[in-house]
Amino acid sequence: MAPIRNARVVFNEIPRTYPEPGKTTVYDDKPTIDIENLKTDGGFVLKTLFLSIDPYLRGRMRPPEIPSYVPAFKIGEPLESHGVGVVVRSDNQGLKVGDHLYGMLTHEEYTIHRSFDGFRLLVNEERLPWSVYLGAAGMPGKTAYAGWREYSRCQRGQTVFVTAGAGPVGSMVIQLARLSGLKIIACAGSEEKVEFIRSLGADVVFNYKTTSTQEVLNKEGPLDIYWDNVGGEALDAALSVSAVGARFIECGMISTYNEGPKPVHNLMQVISNNLCMHGFIVFRLERQYDNDFYWNVPQMLGRGELKYSEEVWRGLEKVGDAILANQKGMNRAKLVIKVADE
Amino acid sequence: MAPIRNARVVFNEIPRTYPEPGKTTVYDDKPTIDIENLKTDGGFVLKTLFLSIDPYLRGRMRPPEIPSYVPAFKIGEPLESHGVGVVVRSDNQGLKVGDHLYGMLTHEEYTIHRSFDGFRLLVNEERLPWSVYLGAAGMPGKTAYAGWREYSRCQRGQTVFVTAGAGPVGSMVIQLARLSGLKIIACAGSEEKVEFIRSLGADVVFNYKTTSTQEVLNKEGPLDIYWDNVGGEALDAALSVSAVGARFIECGMISTYNEGPKPVHNLMQVISNNLCMHGFIVFRLERQYDNDFYWNVPQMLGRGELKYSEEVWRGLEKVGDAILANQKGMNRAKLVIKVADE
Repeated sequence: MAPIRNARVVFNEIPRTYPEPGKTTVYDDKPTIDIENLKTDGGFVLKTLFLSIDPYLRGRMRPPEIPSYVPAFKIGEPLESHGVGVVVRSDNQGLKVGDHLYGMLTHEEYTIHRSFDGFRLLVNEERLPWSVYLGAAGMPGKTAYAGWREYSRCQRGQTVFVTAGAGPVGSMVIQLARLSGLKIIACAGSEEKVEFIRSLGADVVFNYKTTSTQEVLNKEGPLDIYWDNVGGEALDAALSVSAVGARFIECGMISTYNEGPKPVHNLMQVISNNLCMHGFIVFRLERQYDNDFYWNVPQMLGRGELKYSEEVWRGLEKVGDAILANQKGMNRAKLVIKVADE
Repeated sequence: MAPIRNARVVFNEIPRTYPEPGKTTVYDDKPTIDIENLKTDGGFVLKTLFLSIDPYLRGRMRPPEIPSYVPAFKIGEPLESHGVGVVVRSDNQGLKVGDHLYGMLTHEEYTIHRSFDGFRLLVNEERLPWSVYLGAAGMPGKTAYAGWREYSRCQRGQTVFVTAGAGPVGSMVIQLARLSGLKIIACAGSEEKVEFIRSLGADVVFNYKTTSTQEVLNKEGPLDIYWDNVGGEALDAALSVSAVGARFIECGMISTYNEGPKPVHNLMQVISNNLCMHGFIVFRLERQYDNDFYWNVPQMLGRGELKYSEEVWRGLEKVGDAILANQKGMNRAKLVIKVADE
């Protein structure tokens, strides 16, 4: 077999505000790969099926000298994100052609891997679409599951507020809160997303672009738990209506990723109301919750006890646009790039 | 005995920024009291000896419709704060003339109390100056003691940063941290205060008015614990050098009390570094730590194992000036008003 195309998406330039497709990231369809004849050194070749587009990717588009919990992308090298691939050639005894793997994938159509380290073999007895292993059954769902169990200390009848409620993290949090018998206030940025949130069982839902978060919370608070995916104004509003002893679970601050931090005025509430503000990155909780998560969540998704929503864009060349849409909240649901059919 | 003067300090006007002596608060020496002939209804008359001047008093100078953890002062009525008084008349079987009580005292020379509720009888076997029961052996010391035990999860060799290190809270935190074997970075706003901090055993001390907090922390961090008494810029700097899993103990934000909240830019660190930010008000921890605190701390102060520093101003008429000095950090040490000799 002759070499075939192995297109990729390269990190080209550090953005100042929002990433610009074609400038921040560049699609490059020139590379080729000769799958049959290349040397794997006992490794395997993975064909990329799905790539996950997540808010935190913006944080990797930074100067490499700024430290953070994940390395900066390198100029001139492909992006990477969580993905699902299928093994198309294996010289590794533990893997066979057709096996599906979940892990960090580079943004290219095929990748040679020397080792299975860091990957998870997806058995998928529930026959979920593979893309779901990037959302509800993947890193975002696990973020919600681990963070909720570790920090919520929830009790039946308490009130939780969830921002970005239609995203894969927020929608899982809402459903976990519903299973725990909480009163759920949740918001998102479009009517369609708000309807999805309503379908998950949230009690009070609103579009934060057309309704004042502060006014809703003044009426529906005080809050025992705030699950924060956005930071900025919503965090400020949540602080202002916090109950004594409330838990603030700080999961994301997307309002600050592209336009810088917004001033938060109500931090004194942390003191006045004995708040506990827990921030976390999911990989630091994985050892504790991974087995439990994969034991429970795919099953519950398969039986329909947990719902999910996703938006699949076709084509590796769409990665740049998808990242921008995700940063702007223009996507309707969990964004996934379908790179190829099996 | 004829009626005698019973001067008081009245809350007169809500301040916009810093409180103004004579305007925000007014000293009124017209009232009188007839201690022998008044009716106590089974209560007692307390002569005010010492009144505590604390940063949180600024928070009580607010419009009453704004809720908080302590009631707003009422226009036209005397201030109140922690104080120590001596019983000069008692119709209560449990109290005798000469007993010393600690509790919330109104800012007047004598007060009639119907009930002992809320007061603590000071036995003072250690023969500490009574004023110390307003500082190291009082609410501020207890704030440090309870907050440190509840939230620090400290381990020998870890690094803690303490702001307002010369105050009664900060200086107690430094000493508790020293007893736990931590590396202590601490600051204050004058050379005299810095020397006091050094004498407590802090490892790295600096005057934040002449030395950049950010630069010191860049060099001496990362921080496992930040004890925050000031908020604003120092909180921002501490966030920027936090270690993964650090505890931020939010005790006060005096930088914001008079001039409003300053923007905090580094809140994303709460997420990136899995921080846990605990805010607290000491009265919510008193049930848990009061016995322990009064069992240990006065003894340790008496034996010189814990040190304290205080600044005593003479005269009830000084309350307004003392509150302003305290808000501006112009006092050298824990500020106490000596209202009268025994």
